[in-house]
Amino acid sequence: MAHINENYGKLPGSYLFSEIARRTAAFAAKHPDADLIRMGIGDVTRPLAPAVIEAMHRAVDDLAAAETFHGYGPEQGYAFLREAIAQGDFAARGVSVDADEIFISDGAKSDCGNIGDIFATDNVIAVCDPVYPVYVDSNAMAGRAGDYDEASQRWENIVYMPTTAENGFCPALPEVPVDIIYLCSPNNPTGTVLTRDQLQAWVDYANECGAVIMFDAAYERFIVDADVPHSIYEVPGAATCAIEFRSFSKTAGFTGARCGYTVVPRALVRGGQSLHDMWNRRQCTKFNGASYVIQRGAEAIYTPEGTRQVDEAIAYYRTNAWLIKEGLEAAGYTVYGAVNSPYIWCKTPEGMGSWEFFDRLLSEAAVITTPGAGFGPAGEGYVRLTAFGERTDAERAMERIGALG
Amino acid sequence: MAHINENYGKLPGSYLFSEIARRTAAFAAKHPDADLIRMGIGDVTRPLAPAVIEAMHRAVDDLAAAETFHGYGPEQGYAFLREAIAQGDFAARGVSVDADEIFISDGAKSDCGNIGDIFATDNVIAVCDPVYPVYVDSNAMAGRAGDYDEASQRWENIVYMPTTAENGFCPALPEVPVDIIYLCSPNNPTGTVLTRDQLQAWVDYANECGAVIMFDAAYERFIVDADVPHSIYEVPGAATCAIEFRSFSKTAGFTGARCGYTVVPRALVRGGQSLHDMWNRRQCTKFNGASYVIQRGAEAIYTPEGTRQVDEAIAYYRTNAWLIKEGLEAAGYTVYGAVNSPYIWCKTPEGMGSWEFFDRLLSEAAVITTPGAGFGPAGEGYVRLTAFGERTDAERAMERIGALG
Repeated sequence: MAHINENYGKLPGSYLFSEIARRTAAFAAKHPDADLIRMGIGDVTRPLAPAVIEAMHRAVDDLAAAETFHGYGPEQGYAFLREAIAQGDFAARGVSVDADEIFISDGAKSDCGNIGDIFATDNVIAVCDPVYPVYVDSNAMAGRAGDYDEASQRWENIVYMPTTAENGFCPALPEVPVDIIYLCSPNNPTGTVLTRDQLQAWVDYANECGAVIMFDAAYERFIVDADVPHSIYEVPGAATCAIEFRSFSKTAGFTGARCGYTVVPRALVRGGQSLHDMWNRRQCTKFNGASYVIQRGAEAIYTPEGTRQVDEAIAYYRTNAWLIKEGLEAAGYTVYGAVNSPYIWCKTPEGMGSWEFFDRLLSEAAVITTPGAGFGPAGEGYVRLTAFGERTDAERAMERIGALG
Repeated sequence: MAHINENYGKLPGSYLFSEIARRTAAFAAKHPDADLIRMGIGDVTRPLAPAVIEAMHRAVDDLAAAETFHGYGPEQGYAFLREAIAQGDFAARGVSVDADEIFISDGAKSDCGNIGDIFATDNVIAVCDPVYPVYVDSNAMAGRAGDYDEASQRWENIVYMPTTAENGFCPALPEVPVDIIYLCSPNNPTGTVLTRDQLQAWVDYANECGAVIMFDAAYERFIVDADVPHSIYEVPGAATCAIEFRSFSKTAGFTGARCGYTVVPRALVRGGQSLHDMWNRRQCTKFNGASYVIQRGAEAIYTPEGTRQVDEAIAYYRTNAWLIKEGLEAAGYTVYGAVNSPYIWCKTPEGMGSWEFFDRLLSEAAVITTPGAGFGPAGEGYVRLTAFGERTDAERAMERIGALG
């Protein structure tokens, strides 16, 4: 008799986006003429850069002729892309990451979820609260979270680090020993960032106690402030304690095309084993490389035209973010994030609950947001708005919210 | 201090293809003018079908304009592809598989490796010997294999089922209780198939004891014999005991494009839990869907032109396989597989070891094969040849082997 992984039965329903959809559908049914503006989901809307489109067309044509056909590629990704990344994302910023420390994949969600394979199940996991749910759920599935407590909305074995306005959205170093620490900067959902000094403190802590930092830099291209590192490897000591996840989803519009990468430095060793070699073995056994067509598209992001075109799309979203921030502030709300991020983290007025504020924005302004409580208990009292939409929608949404009074 | 997954340290080196490469390079260095014919690696060489190429170009263009842009798709795959598969691969053969039981992915290797996530670590795994190494290694990584014994080349907790000429390449039902059984038909590496009656015996066994069959049908499109099921769901009772893995890699040349799918029937329940729902949760948490561009390409395989074009490529490889089989038999060798498969499983002459025979074919005919011993102890005494190459190479290789005497 086959035995199932009992940890799956402990997972609470993935309630957030289905509940948003349910409430939105109920509102739309009552108000069929309502002109809904969706600022809830973090998905891009701008088309791919022309340089990327051209590269993908060329790659498709490569697969159309025997002479240029590409079958199985390297599980770690093609050298052309790994080298473009090493140069464009790291060497260009003075950061030393070798092409062979870069593992191309179909996206950061896969890597964030699968990286747990190379760690034992008895590690203590620390996450920020609020948090991107994949870090928590993937560890719960692997048995690292213990049981879920409905009342506190927390897993018994996970260390939650409140990340709120009170601590400037930089979690305090944990008071209990932890083994694996998830950090995300620019942060999803709060849109806030960790400065060089703040990251240095985390790197020093991890090196001291042997913890490993899982650094999610999926939104790095939105950074404008000079003292905010784009990569954790800009911080001395990170190569011996950190794995970094990157994605082309938000930086270059690849949410549908699918491509990302993970950096596992050669210097990262635990229990006498190279985590680089372990991840390589994991990928060679359980992954067959990202699509050739998509890797060629990703390579084009690093050409001069590709860079310029992608920067234009980022600038478009960034202007949306600033416009939303200004609109909300003009309407009297307290707002975080937005400056170095496509996410705007808005404090609810007068201690209102985040679902209550969600309902108010939906019913009175027909604007869909994401309740902060959906990202963890410390997200209560906030809603998240995203800048991934049309300029006119951002403008209209702010006019409506401003008019609420 | 982060703790690593200690099971990785138990894995023997992945020796097979690197050793083949080493011996080939040594031979080529000694004989720089040698005209090597590669029949070792199971990778396709024909270009993608024109209908697939056109569909991919159209999909790339969809991503070039805001009006037709596709961001995040469903984690389970797009309905257009799931429905095309349900119709083309199942309903058309009288098999009832719902579109919502089909999970699209970036390939069967990912799914074969990741499916273990939903099972407990204490399941007893049964595999054929010889075997596709992913089944064994992915379970060893998850702690289901115990320790590896160098002498026997076997893991202590895995049940090996010899699959050889002596039992007609159909493994006997295990004498000890097993929980998860990997079957592959048409088989890699032997090229042999399981008939309807043989599969029925396995399905009945699994339903009786509650085991789950992992059925790898990556090569189904090569089947020509009427009594060989293309899907395990052609066999009554399979929906309550089997998960099926399919790939577009070998059927439609997608080894570089990357796409496959896995069927988890709604009727498959263990420990009171729906394995369909568990796999859905796994994919939603740790996967973000296959590329839109590639899914559109896969959809085109099911159009009338796509079907015809893909059948032509399969016919090309199939003719190669038959030609290799005839050539080897004419040279006096005993050969299995080839009829319903791109793989030819050739008995070594006079009890010669498989590495010895590999060396002989390399040094005397400049033909590269794969030693059967690399797929498990019961593969000793065989080499594998593949039909995925140019017709002229297959012809020339057989001429050379025939001339060896």
